[in-house]
Amino acid sequence: MNVRGAPALGCVAAYGLVLSSQEKKFSNSKSLLAYIYASGQTLFSTRPTAVNLHWALERMKSMIKVIHLKEKTERGRLKEIREVLEKEANKIYEEDLKSNLQMADLGSKLLPFQGGTVLTHCNTGSLATAGWGTALGVIRTAYRKGKIKKVLVDETRPYLQGARLTMWELHQDKIPCELITDSMAAHLMKTEKIDAVLVGADRIASNGDVANKIGTYNLAILCHYHKIPFYVVAPTSTVDMNILSGAQIPIEERSHKEVTHIKTYAIAPLNSVARHPAFDVTPVVLISAIVTEKGVVQPPSSHAIKELFNPKKI
Amino acid sequence: MNVRGAPALGCVAAYGLVLSSQEKKFSNSKSLLAYIYASGQTLFSTRPTAVNLHWALERMKSMIKVIHLKEKTERGRLKEIREVLEKEANKIYEEDLKSNLQMADLGSKLLPFQGGTVLTHCNTGSLATAGWGTALGVIRTAYRKGKIKKVLVDETRPYLQGARLTMWELHQDKIPCELITDSMAAHLMKTEKIDAVLVGADRIASNGDVANKIGTYNLAILCHYHKIPFYVVAPTSTVDMNILSGAQIPIEERSHKEVTHIKTYAIAPLNSVARHPAFDVTPVVLISAIVTEKGVVQPPSSHAIKELFNPKKI
Repeated sequence: MNVRGAPALGCVAAYGLVLSSQEKKFSNSKSLLAYIYASGQTLFSTRPTAVNLHWALERMKSMIKVIHLKEKTERGRLKEIREVLEKEANKIYEEDLKSNLQMADLGSKLLPFQGGTVLTHCNTGSLATAGWGTALGVIRTAYRKGKIKKVLVDETRPYLQGARLTMWELHQDKIPCELITDSMAAHLMKTEKIDAVLVGADRIASNGDVANKIGTYNLAILCHYHKIPFYVVAPTSTVDMNILSGAQIPIEERSHKEVTHIKTYAIAPLNSVARHPAFDVTPVVLISAIVTEKGVVQPPSSHAIKELFNPKKI
Repeated sequence: MNVRGAPALGCVAAYGLVLSSQEKKFSNSKSLLAYIYASGQTLFSTRPTAVNLHWALERMKSMIKVIHLKEKTERGRLKEIREVLEKEANKIYEEDLKSNLQMADLGSKLLPFQGGTVLTHCNTGSLATAGWGTALGVIRTAYRKGKIKKVLVDETRPYLQGARLTMWELHQDKIPCELITDSMAAHLMKTEKIDAVLVGADRIASNGDVANKIGTYNLAILCHYHKIPFYVVAPTSTVDMNILSGAQIPIEERSHKEVTHIKTYAIAPLNSVARHPAFDVTPVVLISAIVTEKGVVQPPSSHAIKELFNPKKI
């Protein structure tokens, strides 16, 4: 959990393989590659839900396979493996940063209001991506355009990414923001004007179902009930075209201690049993639009998502 | 906040007046009564949302008015004021305990399942009432009858009454329970079988709208979406027949520090602005039934609630 946020996990996994490739103890490419593959397995097993981790590792591995075909001296092969991986990791990083800005542009244009109040969950800013952010990237750009005047921030129990990270990022940008507990969203939707809810994603199924931080599904239902637009902002690297629906997305179960304790401070009786699904799945029917760097899918559907990957359309 | 829980607030307010009446410094009934009334004002102003506080104080004051009409020696009047108030406070306490058991009986009969899983919010047990509890009282009785096999407990941010108090009460009773964050309810409603949600109330309007701990309205919407029965359990002392709807219920705003800190531990950047509505209002349309000591109102309506107070029906 030193790294979290689906796009950041992808970038860091790529650089993890670069660091593996730079281990000096290997004198032949075969043993170095075995080590890189083993590192890839280790990195892959760290977090099951965010597909960007898998996506970045597969992309890195596919580059190695290309090198493999070339005839080189052993020393030359070692050098090329290292160079190719570093180049690809840089590319993943740069592409993510670029896609953040594209989503921020597309997403901020999508918001049908001026001077509005939005609500967000978890952290989806610079701390969760290569740079500008996904949902928080849209919020940052929309604030600069005058579309947003205030951000309500779900504290995002149990790990408090909203309270700790999103509040910090909004303070850095001097964007007016108010911290709320996750349980206050419905009350504020009813008693005050909330113009939109924006969240990121850890994995998007090919039908548009979205896995994201626990509490997202909750929020989507509240938006549906109050007729508030619910936007998901995520790069296409978060889309998993290999699965038909959200039911196939593995949900990471994290330590119960993150629920029963705040750091080392116990908030429940000793020996309390707790639950900790770290993510939930929001069905596509509750999502107003998915904003990707390749375009906005509104409303999301299997067909519309497939079209994002159609090379003729890009 | 040394005392919380609407029925407990009523009992404690009554005993607060008893303690005031026992101040030894007053030698005439007029100055003692002035002191008691002032104490009543102070007690009343402590918490605006739970109507039981107002209800108990009014009931105590009405007893004083009756004494007032009688001719007595000054010494005799002092004695009678003290006796009458203590007797009435004891009556309020005993009635609340009795009504807890009546609600537990009626509510547990209402649950249309055996070996079910229920979810509850905040704390509504012995720590919130004169004794057995409201929603948690129903759960305790229904567990003994085999109707419930497991309780999911919302931690109930920000004040964590669920994590701190309800988990403790369930452990005392050895009822299997699991602590969840408030944001997990929707996910568990979708992925596991939750048979009912039971909550208490701080004030019920004459039309059946219910003010209760922040997060209750959230849960009611989730139940509506997942077609799960949503039950409110509260004594008739919680019903405010003087207001037409929940819109007239004052919502207490509590310290932002309860949101930005867990005890003294800061969970958000310094100077973070936070919100803290301590209660929310659930509209009657989202409530499957209201369980009172005088009967179950299912579905709740202005007419059905008025009937609870019809002396012919009692």
